[in-house]
Amino acid sequence: MLTKANAIISPMKISELGEFGLIDLIRNTIARYENSEHAPWQKVLVGIGDDAAAWQSDTHIQLATTDTLVQDIHFDLDVINWEELGWKALAVNLSDIAAMGGIPKYALLSLALPRELEVEDIYKFTNSMVHLAGEFGVAIAGGNVATAPNVVITVTVIGCSKGNAILKRSTASPGEQIAVTGYLGLSAAGLEMLKKTTIPDPETSNILRRAHLQPTPRVKEGQILVEQGVKTAIDISDGLVADLDHICESSKANAKIKIEQVPVHPVVKANFPNHQQLALCGGEDYELLFTADEATVAQAKQALDCPVTVIGDITEEELATRVTVVDSKGNIIPYKKGGWEHFRNGSPKIKFA
Amino acid sequence: MLTKANAIISPMKISELGEFGLIDLIRNTIARYENSEHAPWQKVLVGIGDDAAAWQSDTHIQLATTDTLVQDIHFDLDVINWEELGWKALAVNLSDIAAMGGIPKYALLSLALPRELEVEDIYKFTNSMVHLAGEFGVAIAGGNVATAPNVVITVTVIGCSKGNAILKRSTASPGEQIAVTGYLGLSAAGLEMLKKTTIPDPETSNILRRAHLQPTPRVKEGQILVEQGVKTAIDISDGLVADLDHICESSKANAKIKIEQVPVHPVVKANFPNHQQLALCGGEDYELLFTADEATVAQAKQALDCPVTVIGDITEEELATRVTVVDSKGNIIPYKKGGWEHFRNGSPKIKFA
Repeated sequence: MLTKANAIISPMKISELGEFGLIDLIRNTIARYENSEHAPWQKVLVGIGDDAAAWQSDTHIQLATTDTLVQDIHFDLDVINWEELGWKALAVNLSDIAAMGGIPKYALLSLALPRELEVEDIYKFTNSMVHLAGEFGVAIAGGNVATAPNVVITVTVIGCSKGNAILKRSTASPGEQIAVTGYLGLSAAGLEMLKKTTIPDPETSNILRRAHLQPTPRVKEGQILVEQGVKTAIDISDGLVADLDHICESSKANAKIKIEQVPVHPVVKANFPNHQQLALCGGEDYELLFTADEATVAQAKQALDCPVTVIGDITEEELATRVTVVDSKGNIIPYKKGGWEHFRNGSPKIKFA
Repeated sequence: MLTKANAIISPMKISELGEFGLIDLIRNTIARYENSEHAPWQKVLVGIGDDAAAWQSDTHIQLATTDTLVQDIHFDLDVINWEELGWKALAVNLSDIAAMGGIPKYALLSLALPRELEVEDIYKFTNSMVHLAGEFGVAIAGGNVATAPNVVITVTVIGCSKGNAILKRSTASPGEQIAVTGYLGLSAAGLEMLKKTTIPDPETSNILRRAHLQPTPRVKEGQILVEQGVKTAIDISDGLVADLDHICESSKANAKIKIEQVPVHPVVKANFPNHQQLALCGGEDYELLFTADEATVAQAKQALDCPVTVIGDITEEELATRVTVVDSKGNIIPYKKGGWEHFRNGSPKIKFA
């Protein structure tokens, strides 16, 4: 680790430091500069540690987010097809803008591709991405291509606030309700099906596949949350518990989830005995998790077209576990921490903006 | 290739299509959408085919560019150290904004890293990038980290125009002069030294190493060009001839370079017998290549602190070679096309914004 004098005490591998430690290292390196004379950093409204970076322009808050998908780490070409990959690579970035309550506007696409790939596959990939971009009024404005031994896709999405407010991770307060849009566990169940389980019913199988490989970002819903006065949100990419933990960490608060209230998708409940675990820790649902006082949540629920479920409360910060899951009698339900990692062989992708 | 009905006639590998063909495929896929009902694309001022994407905001022209560097394709960790890599990954993107005459403002960093890397190396990498960012008033606003089998670095830089004008590739006119900032061939000579040549003089060796591994983007110079009324520019990343070819292609014009006027760096002239080839096709000099009428070039030369050399003229478009290199007697000098590819084993990285 780094001392205050910025010296490395002893050699250490990234694997020992961990991904969150790595982000802290980058954050600290930048933070030291923030306090120096030349710092241009005061322009950033929301920097490292939210779904997207944000800064004030003359008329709006500008938003920008980026995500890299590496072949065999973040996707498996034996499982996902090229149309789905083009969709998902953009969708996860649109979801980050949705988590800020913003309007996505422009996308840049950076592609590193092996030379032996079929042209038709890249055509399918691009066509699918362009189609999704069109659905959300996003222009693919440019990018770059390069050859590489494995497929690496980086998408950047730039957007802005609708009015002059955005959703953040850092504004949750004790006493607020915790709510989620839609249903949880579907994406993780989809991955489980794709990897090892056969679901005989084709309709169910399609729902699961689509949930995991072609998620729909809650862009309109994020904007409605801002309009209704909600201040705090995150998209569920790492998993319900893990993402709520991010909100708690940023907001210096704790959270309590009532397990019976978590909206597990009926298809998951019916086909997966571990549905509770999938809904709590599965990740990649790209639903929005938000907090607000009771009246604001009720108002948001009325304004949104999708299901909204209150699943618990924000509580005072304590030294104990930040996120507690309880049953109807108040008994603590254990959960496997990790969310994303749990499903991805310990190779997570972690946002620092 | 794709027919007009968008069907693939026969299977084809990316290697057969080539990188420029690949960009055309992506460009065409997006263009087809542009003409559809849902098209949000009219918002883009400069789309695929320039150094950065550009769109009009309420007060300025917004600019965005992205670049991916893949280990063992775009850099070799036996040659470049981590400080240099952090510098260069940002510098090449700043240079794209410079080529548009813009002000870089924010950067996003997407890092895919093997778990066995040393934490100290990533600290050096980040520190160096943050330092360069600070020099140019750029805030590193966010990004993401992921694990991967090899190092993949994607940097996105977002900026804006100084007034309401930018430099483009598409605006060169016959009769205009062609000029370059600084000296050429230094970066390619640096690469040649790092790969196979020993330069005994440490000062010379340092100049060459720094030119290749820690280039300084001409950000201020690009802005001055816009102020002085220049409309057309590109940064020399692929090589003088290759980048001039990009301008000619976008502007539907030809170009003639007078070889004696090309400002080969004295260090290159003194140490490399192939100095002409290095200056013409070397690439990665990150100097600015611009065109304008004689009076505007003279004015720009006076306004700029760095050397400015007129090297030729833009001519009418003809079917022959777009870029011709001639000696003082008008004899045509052959050159190896390819620039970047020539130095990179055929694994170029090509911008499409």
